[in-house]
Amino acid sequence: MTERNKRRKPVSRGGNTKHAAPDATLGGARLEGPDSVSELTTNRLSVYLRCLNTLDAAGVRTVSSQGLADQFHLNAAQIRKDLAYFGEFGVRGVGYYVKELRRHLRQILGLDRHVAVAIMGAGNLGLALADYPGFRQEGFEIAAMFDSRADKIGHRSRAGVPIHDSRDLRRIVKREHIRIAVVAVPAHAAQSVVNAVVATGIKAVLNFAPGTLKVPADVKLKNMDLTVSLESLSFFLAQSDA
Amino acid sequence: MTERNKRRKPVSRGGNTKHAAPDATLGGARLEGPDSVSELTTNRLSVYLRCLNTLDAAGVRTVSSQGLADQFHLNAAQIRKDLAYFGEFGVRGVGYYVKELRRHLRQILGLDRHVAVAIMGAGNLGLALADYPGFRQEGFEIAAMFDSRADKIGHRSRAGVPIHDSRDLRRIVKREHIRIAVVAVPAHAAQSVVNAVVATGIKAVLNFAPGTLKVPADVKLKNMDLTVSLESLSFFLAQSDA
Repeated sequence: MTERNKRRKPVSRGGNTKHAAPDATLGGARLEGPDSVSELTTNRLSVYLRCLNTLDAAGVRTVSSQGLADQFHLNAAQIRKDLAYFGEFGVRGVGYYVKELRRHLRQILGLDRHVAVAIMGAGNLGLALADYPGFRQEGFEIAAMFDSRADKIGHRSRAGVPIHDSRDLRRIVKREHIRIAVVAVPAHAAQSVVNAVVATGIKAVLNFAPGTLKVPADVKLKNMDLTVSLESLSFFLAQSDA
Repeated sequence: MTERNKRRKPVSRGGNTKHAAPDATLGGARLEGPDSVSELTTNRLSVYLRCLNTLDAAGVRTVSSQGLADQFHLNAAQIRKDLAYFGEFGVRGVGYYVKELRRHLRQILGLDRHVAVAIMGAGNLGLALADYPGFRQEGFEIAAMFDSRADKIGHRSRAGVPIHDSRDLRRIVKREHIRIAVVAVPAHAAQSVVNAVVATGIKAVLNFAPGTLKVPADVKLKNMDLTVSLESLSFFLAQSDA
């Protein structure tokens, strides 16, 4: 019991962790960093949180792992296993208290505190990300965008995120306590932008540019390769036709 | 050997497949469809293809699984296992012929033929996706965008993708032989847009709208929940601070 109650225990376990690095990094770069809880597990925690948000908004007070699984097409045993890893949240005969589990998951995911995010690049993708409603909803604050084009600098996204000159990156990052940078620039500019981001001391980068980026070992890089997701659909279609 | 040479064998294998559905669907909806090759495996094939593209462009003719692993931070045993599943591509003492393996992977992923894609919604996200260079590079043709706003219809993205009236969806889908739809509309409009897409006979949908969408069992839905990726970075930061 005491063993289970230790939260954020940085120990890898079970089969999921084995392939975590290549599976979770669609852009081909390895996820680096001190954590060894499977990337897939944290992804599932995010999904559970999304489900609990829906239940909470609907006024549901308690839910069993089976109920969660049935309503959201998940795996009940997997839910129990994932949650047990971080503590004892369930109550026998009741299941989980929705609000309480939601609060716990937000805490595990580091969402119980302010997380300021910068977006590098104020093109269509950068502007779309700046105003993506899901980010704000979960407690992320898109505090700033950066671009080098004079016709962008000084303007704001529709939701009001200011576009700063890239040359002011270091100053604004300090001022706004920015901890995550999202790279939404063309591929040819991505490495130099990431270098500038890393130089400010930011340790977490979400990259949308195609290609492989290099970061120091203490920086966590997560690649969103949008082509990979289209290819898995193409694979599905090719199989269906065969 | 003959067993191994059967390509696209629709049989699940090994530990990866077990958790494929919940792991691969970040938005919470289950991936539906006839394939049972792990979603994670196809994601890795996409990553290998991306690496081979890089090598081919650099003029590299052969590469070993270990060489691939070292250069791109992958797992050599996993590469061999994934590729062996689809056929015998390696040559003892040589490794893989880059061009040939690249051609095979493109074939396995269904990229050896024209795949036309429609984008639903011509906002910032839709426009960013329409012009995303990675798609075109891998053989996807973004054939059309759809929107219901009069000030959008009749215009084109910067790369030249035409924006059609949503009411013409069925006609254009037939005319352009569109097989994949990408949903880039606000969350409140997503389900009705997906319903319209499904009604045209399209069987593969990539969804960027937050929330859970429902599709018939013969339609493959892949959710890209952008918040999930930010949350895994937030989790990493919370762990680092602890």
